[in-house]
Amino acid sequence: MTPRRPLLAALAGDQEIEALLGDAAQVAAMVQFELALAQAEAEVGLISAAAAAAIASGLAGFEPDWDDLAAGMARDGVVVPALLGQMRRRIAAPHAEALHRGATSQDAVDTALVLQLAAVIAILIARLTALLDGLDRLADRQGTQPLMAHTRMQVALPHTVGAKLASWSAPLRRHLSALQAVRRSLLVVQLGGPIGDRSSFGGQGDAVARALARQLDLGLAEPWQSARDPLIGFGGLLALLTGTLGKIGADVALLAQNEIGAVALAGGGGSSSMAHKSNPVAAEVLVALARYNAGLVGVLQQSMVHENERSGAAWTLEWLALPPTVVSTGASLRLANQLLGQLSFPNS
Amino acid sequence: MTPRRPLLAALAGDQEIEALLGDAAQVAAMVQFELALAQAEAEVGLISAAAAAAIASGLAGFEPDWDDLAAGMARDGVVVPALLGQMRRRIAAPHAEALHRGATSQDAVDTALVLQLAAVIAILIARLTALLDGLDRLADRQGTQPLMAHTRMQVALPHTVGAKLASWSAPLRRHLSALQAVRRSLLVVQLGGPIGDRSSFGGQGDAVARALARQLDLGLAEPWQSARDPLIGFGGLLALLTGTLGKIGADVALLAQNEIGAVALAGGGGSSSMAHKSNPVAAEVLVALARYNAGLVGVLQQSMVHENERSGAAWTLEWLALPPTVVSTGASLRLANQLLGQLSFPNS
Amino acid sequence: MTPRRPLLAALAGDQEIEALLGDAAQVAAMVQFELALAQAEAEVGLISAAAAAAIASGLAGFEPDWDDLAAGMARDGVVVPALLGQMRRRIAAPHAEALHRGATSQDAVDTALVLQLAAVIAILIARLTALLDGLDRLADRQGTQPLMAHTRMQVALPHTVGAKLASWSAPLRRHLSALQAVRRSLLVVQLGGPIGDRSSFGGQGDAVARALARQLDLGLAEPWQSARDPLIGFGGLLALLTGTLGKIGADVALLAQNEIGAVALAGGGGSSSMAHKSNPVAAEVLVALARYNAGLVGVLQQSMVHENERSGAAWTLEWLALPPTVVSTGASLRLANQLLGQLSFPNS
Amino acid sequence: MTPRRPLLAALAGDQEIEALLGDAAQVAAMVQFELALAQAEAEVGLISAAAAAAIASGLAGFEPDWDDLAAGMARDGVVVPALLGQMRRRIAAPHAEALHRGATSQDAVDTALVLQLAAVIAILIARLTALLDGLDRLADRQGTQPLMAHTRMQVALPHTVGAKLASWSAPLRRHLSALQAVRRSLLVVQLGGPIGDRSSFGGQGDAVARALARQLDLGLAEPWQSARDPLIGFGGLLALLTGTLGKIGADVALLAQNEIGAVALAGGGGSSSMAHKSNPVAAEVLVALARYNAGLVGVLQQSMVHENERSGAAWTLEWLALPPTVVSTGASLRLANQLLGQLSFPNS
Repeated sequence: MTPRRPLLAALAGDQEIEALLGDAAQVAAMVQFELALAQAEAEVGLISAAAAAAIASGLAGFEPDWDDLAAGMARDGVVVPALLGQMRRRIAAPHAEALHRGATSQDAVDTALVLQLAAVIAILIARLTALLDGLDRLADRQGTQPLMAHTRMQVALPHTVGAKLASWSAPLRRHLSALQAVRRSLLVVQLGGPIGDRSSFGGQGDAVARALARQLDLGLAEPWQSARDPLIGFGGLLALLTGTLGKIGADVALLAQNEIGAVALAGGGGSSSMAHKSNPVAAEVLVALARYNAGLVGVLQQSMVHENERSGAAWTLEWLALPPTVVSTGASLRLANQLLGQLSFPNS
Repeated sequence: MTPRRPLLAALAGDQEIEALLGDAAQVAAMVQFELALAQAEAEVGLISAAAAAAIASGLAGFEPDWDDLAAGMARDGVVVPALLGQMRRRIAAPHAEALHRGATSQDAVDTALVLQLAAVIAILIARLTALLDGLDRLADRQGTQPLMAHTRMQVALPHTVGAKLASWSAPLRRHLSALQAVRRSLLVVQLGGPIGDRSSFGGQGDAVARALARQLDLGLAEPWQSARDPLIGFGGLLALLTGTLGKIGADVALLAQNEIGAVALAGGGGSSSMAHKSNPVAAEVLVALARYNAGLVGVLQQSMVHENERSGAAWTLEWLALPPTVVSTGASLRLANQLLGQLSFPNS
Repeated sequence: MTPRRPLLAALAGDQEIEALLGDAAQVAAMVQFELALAQAEAEVGLISAAAAAAIASGLAGFEPDWDDLAAGMARDGVVVPALLGQMRRRIAAPHAEALHRGATSQDAVDTALVLQLAAVIAILIARLTALLDGLDRLADRQGTQPLMAHTRMQVALPHTVGAKLASWSAPLRRHLSALQAVRRSLLVVQLGGPIGDRSSFGGQGDAVARALARQLDLGLAEPWQSARDPLIGFGGLLALLTGTLGKIGADVALLAQNEIGAVALAGGGGSSSMAHKSNPVAAEVLVALARYNAGLVGVLQQSMVHENERSGAAWTLEWLALPPTVVSTGASLRLANQLLGQLSFPNS
Repeated sequence: MTPRRPLLAALAGDQEIEALLGDAAQVAAMVQFELALAQAEAEVGLISAAAAAAIASGLAGFEPDWDDLAAGMARDGVVVPALLGQMRRRIAAPHAEALHRGATSQDAVDTALVLQLAAVIAILIARLTALLDGLDRLADRQGTQPLMAHTRMQVALPHTVGAKLASWSAPLRRHLSALQAVRRSLLVVQLGGPIGDRSSFGGQGDAVARALARQLDLGLAEPWQSARDPLIGFGGLLALLTGTLGKIGADVALLAQNEIGAVALAGGGGSSSMAHKSNPVAAEVLVALARYNAGLVGVLQQSMVHENERSGAAWTLEWLALPPTVVSTGASLRLANQLLGQLSFPNS
């Protein structure tokens, strides 16, 4: 866990993405899951239409008791038992027991995460698209200008601003394609029941899963509770993206050195002791976030090793490591767009 | 950066440590630094006694404008320029310029961090001492009971509860010694000025540093702005500690398996779908935190590579990676003490 | 770098993959690159047919002077200048200068790596296919047998051997698809010249690249010398695969515990001090390799941050981190197939 | 595992250290352990003097059958059972069974590792001392020359070559002290027997350990088979050292940029396509090794989590991650000394 530091977040975080991954968004997504599950189970006849209606009306306007949820989280290692308790107290008897029928905590948490990530991915795609557009416009404006290329930290041969910008855009285009493609593998329901085999849905597990996926506008998949490769692979994809943005940051910081002056940055950061300084703040933070995410992916990958049908240790590790990776990616894209707005190649 | 998730923090975080590393604590420590610096500079005659007094009375009861600080942080990559601006507006003319005389942002941020860590380390030491005491008491109660040893995941030979507990305590005692020793190397002032050579203090840099250290009850050290080994080494020490606690968690989770039953846990975590379950939540989270901190240290170590006299990229990376390591260590100790309170070895 | 330890390699390495990534294989692939480049450049008229023929006959049966290559590597940070020197001394005047025309060291090293990886990937796919077949056969034999499921290290509910095996196969099938798909993005030529813009090929760069790709049976791509995402993404894919195999290893080691006995292993490892032990060696090593590769990917990702048109630091880091990842993946697949041959589910 | 690549080793490896960590050195150290153990056990009367003599004469000139060791390693997950078998066949009956009396494989492997590391540490200390001496001499020669300081990748204020060199030496001096101090905590015997409690030495375990330590000129310690903090902490110390050397490499590469020219390097690396290039090869490799070791420590830390009295998975992971860390440290020191020999600060 990490302390609350809005100041650091103002520099290297991302309010919009943080909100989508915060507790309120998670609980809202879990409520959405439970409502859709009840609807799906009513469709296939696993619970009654009356139960589904009671659940829907009971959960309308649901606001959690956060202290009780925190206590439950600390006790159970997962928030769902406490959350279900709160929910059930709002549902008219005898329908409370129809809530979450056949499902397990992980079904709620994982499907909620997927819903949260769907919103995140849309933002990442929009920002990446804007960045690529901005690079194209810059190439239109300055692409034919000469620029000195550098290899191994030494002057190499002259090329152009356009060649430099193309070397930035090419991997970004690959990342954009990958982000668009990942929706198919990642944005799928989790529905497995206690041990992940759908045996708890009275023989109707697959039908419930299909209806649930349709309700939530998600893809259909076999239960993946102990096979986290789509999720961890998504983390890896994000690290590739922040890696590319970090490489852009490194280029900018190097080209903006006073002795080189091949890049000009409007509005660089000030210093408390040297009034003449104009620091390439956004470029530096892009490098920091690239290195941070690179390492976090190494942590996240450790959470592949689930013990048997569900590992509390591996799952908790995933909760610790994945959200910062996602937020850092949002922050990198935010900063890269900001940096692009500040950046020009002076006519030497 | 990481989203705000108090629910996860209730499980795997640490309110007390988080508060000590949060923004309010950091700003308070930076105010403390600036006050002590003014006092020290007045002592050696670098600023007037009147200036020091004006600074002290101007900063009495200082409350920051947080939005302005966040804007400054985003602009400058470090919060100090904005903070100094706010401070100076409260200090009677002509003394505002005496504030922060000769110092640089990093002097304030780093020394503040050291003050924050001093408070953290005291808590870690207290918790670790309590844990060792608890292990000793458990050994007194149950140490002679037989227990089966396991090597390579297989039954090995019988030993005793005492031997098991001794294998836990031995490394913890080493970590306690190391934590106590680290005060000497880590809890030192940072005072270097813009480029870390104390040339900005009118030839009195060493004297100012000595007086500052005395004021703040910290050790004296050469400027270490681009040589972060004491800080990163401290992160490594914390990862060793959480590694040992994770090993204890792994042992407990293994011994508490239903088929083995060599450990009993009072108050295990509940399940949303299997009423009979009693999950070893604290033990699992100890494993998760051990793996998280292990990996974070790999990230933190990357921030050793500063470029020249100060790297914005490396420093930002340190800000991202160190605090979660510290909080996770606090959480591990909190959970280990909790787990020890739940744990007994049934007489088989 | 790592010391030479054939004993450890016998346990956790892979002779076949190691050979494909060793120096001899690399030099052979670079010779293949230079021959194909000469052929391609003759096709488009950049060098004469006579030069291409002189190069082909000069390099026939080429055997490097290894000591000279090692000295060149230590001096230049890349082996190609020394290798070209050796090659040119074997080519009849005046054609020596036509060798490597327009290309840069990185074109030779990167395209050679791709050729080496093509051979590796074929082996990985074959082994993974064999593993999936073996899992299917085991499911046919024992799939309907009951097996107790475990969640969070506790007994959960009964399921079947078939459900367990399906939870192993599902992610492996995804990895197999991904490995097959990666050929398209990864197995492409690198041809960029000194600064990666193909400006050194007399306006014929794209045509040379096309002919070269055809000669080497590789895909065509824009130069990717400072954009390593396909390569690093491949490392991430391998870590997902070893992560899944590590999860299988963890399951086997847990189920094979004496107190549980849900899995039997023929031919477990012996102990120097406890004759009764039968250690689940292959299962343990799968876990070790999963954790090793997980962390290595975090290292490898750091090599995304190239400075400008080529980073010696980032490229060297990639050389250090990628090959062990690949070898560990080969070893994991080898061990998983071995483990599957030892494994059965006793009728309880 | 990693493929055999002597060419990469010539650049980024270290022949001397690699030899000390290779199989031959390990087997020699294990033979030394078994001889000293027999001697120690004869001293305390656990085995007869005749047995110790038979062991000593039987093992004189011992040369292992490497293929048999490799087969044993693959089968048992540890080389000791096979090695003991080979040894016992050379010892006159009835004394073969006195070999390794009461000990376990881990006693032999861990104590051998400590013996190997003792030799390594001596070399590291010598190289680090030479490096510090070289920095002092350079400071004597050029310390008063002006040099421009840079913060956050921008020109800051003028300082001197001496200030720069002092910023390099200060952390290196701390690392030297730490390396010297680590002998006390790290260079200790491992003697625990099968489950690490010395119960297998007929009540004489502590006496045997004392005699063994004296025989091997190592310190005495409680068994540490599942508590690896001294070893992993040593890895962390090495990463701090390579981190500092990587920071020096980054400084040199930045200051040696053509546009800055504040550092001159004799004998830079050549390029296959740009004859004018003089690449800062050693500086770049220092950065690469710093990042490699930083990440490896994150992997190594994962091996803290042993299951119960010995974890095959964690121990194997340690074998994979520690030796490359050590070799990379040796290589970094080798390269730093080389770089220092090439480096001067031109009079501007």
